[in-house]
Amino acid sequence: MPSKSDNPFTSLKRIFHEPNRLAILSALCSAANGLTFRDLKEQCDLTDGNLSRHLKALEEAGVIDIEKKFVGVKPQTTVLLTDKGRKNFIEYLKALEDVLKKAADAVSSGEEGEALPFEWIKPLGAQ
Amino acid sequence: MPSKSDNPFTSLKRIFHEPNRLAILSALCSAANGLTFRDLKEQCDLTDGNLSRHLKALEEAGVIDIEKKFVGVKPQTTVLLTDKGRKNFIEYLKALEDVLKKAADAVSSGEEGEALPFEWIKPLGAQ
Repeated sequence: MPSKSDNPFTSLKRIFHEPNRLAILSALCSAANGLTFRDLKEQCDLTDGNLSRHLKALEEAGVIDIEKKFVGVKPQTTVLLTDKGRKNFIEYLKALEDVLKKAADAVSSGEEGEALPFEWIKPLGAQ
Repeated sequence: MPSKSDNPFTSLKRIFHEPNRLAILSALCSAANGLTFRDLKEQCDLTDGNLSRHLKALEEAGVIDIEKKFVGVKPQTTVLLTDKGRKNFIEYLKALEDVLKKAADAVSSGEEGEALPFEWIKPLGAQ
C-alpha cells in the first residue's frame, strides 16, 4: 500500500483546497500590496461572514497577514499574502497540477480514442 | 459583481472536489468494468468507513452504481461509474483546469520575472 506522501490526492493541502479559499489566494497572489477586505469580498463574491471565517483560518495558518488601520476616520482592513503563504500555495498548485494530470490520464484511458474536451491537458505518456 | 456562474472557483462541483473523492473518481474512470470495494480501498488508501461514506454520497448523486453479488460464498461489492458520473467528472476537470490556469496566472503576475516551477501551466496571455 502506498504511503500517504506518495498519494498525490492526499498531498493536496486542505487549507487551500476549498473553492472559495482558492479564489481568495488567487486574488491575493496578484496583489503585491495586498487587498482591502472590501475588494477581496467583491473579487471573490463572498459575504462578510464567509470571508471573515476563511481569513481567520488562513491567518492562523500563517498564510496571510491582516493589517487594520484608520484611513481618515474610517477603519480599513488590508489582507496580504505572507512569503510562507505564497510558497505553500505554489506547492499546492503543483500538487493540484499532478492530480489533474492523473485524472485526465485516467479519463483518457477509459475513452477508447474519443476526443476529450481538454484544451491543454496532456495525458501522461502522450507523445 | 460577477454572478456565481461566472466565477470559475464556485463552479467547481463540490461532490468531486474533496481529495479522496478525486482519487476515487480517477480510479473508477480507468476501470471500464468497475472496481471491487477492496481494490478501490487499496488504490485510494482509505479505510472501510471512509470509503463507504464517500461511496454513499456518490451513489446518492447518481455518479456511481454499487453492485452486490456473491462470488461463491463470499459477498463482493463492485463499484461502477455511471455515464452521468463520467460526464459530470469530465466537466469538473475542465472547471478545475480553468481554476488552475487562473491561479497560475495570478502567481506568475506577482513573481516579477522569476521562473516558476510549473512544468506545463501556461499563464493566461502567455505567448
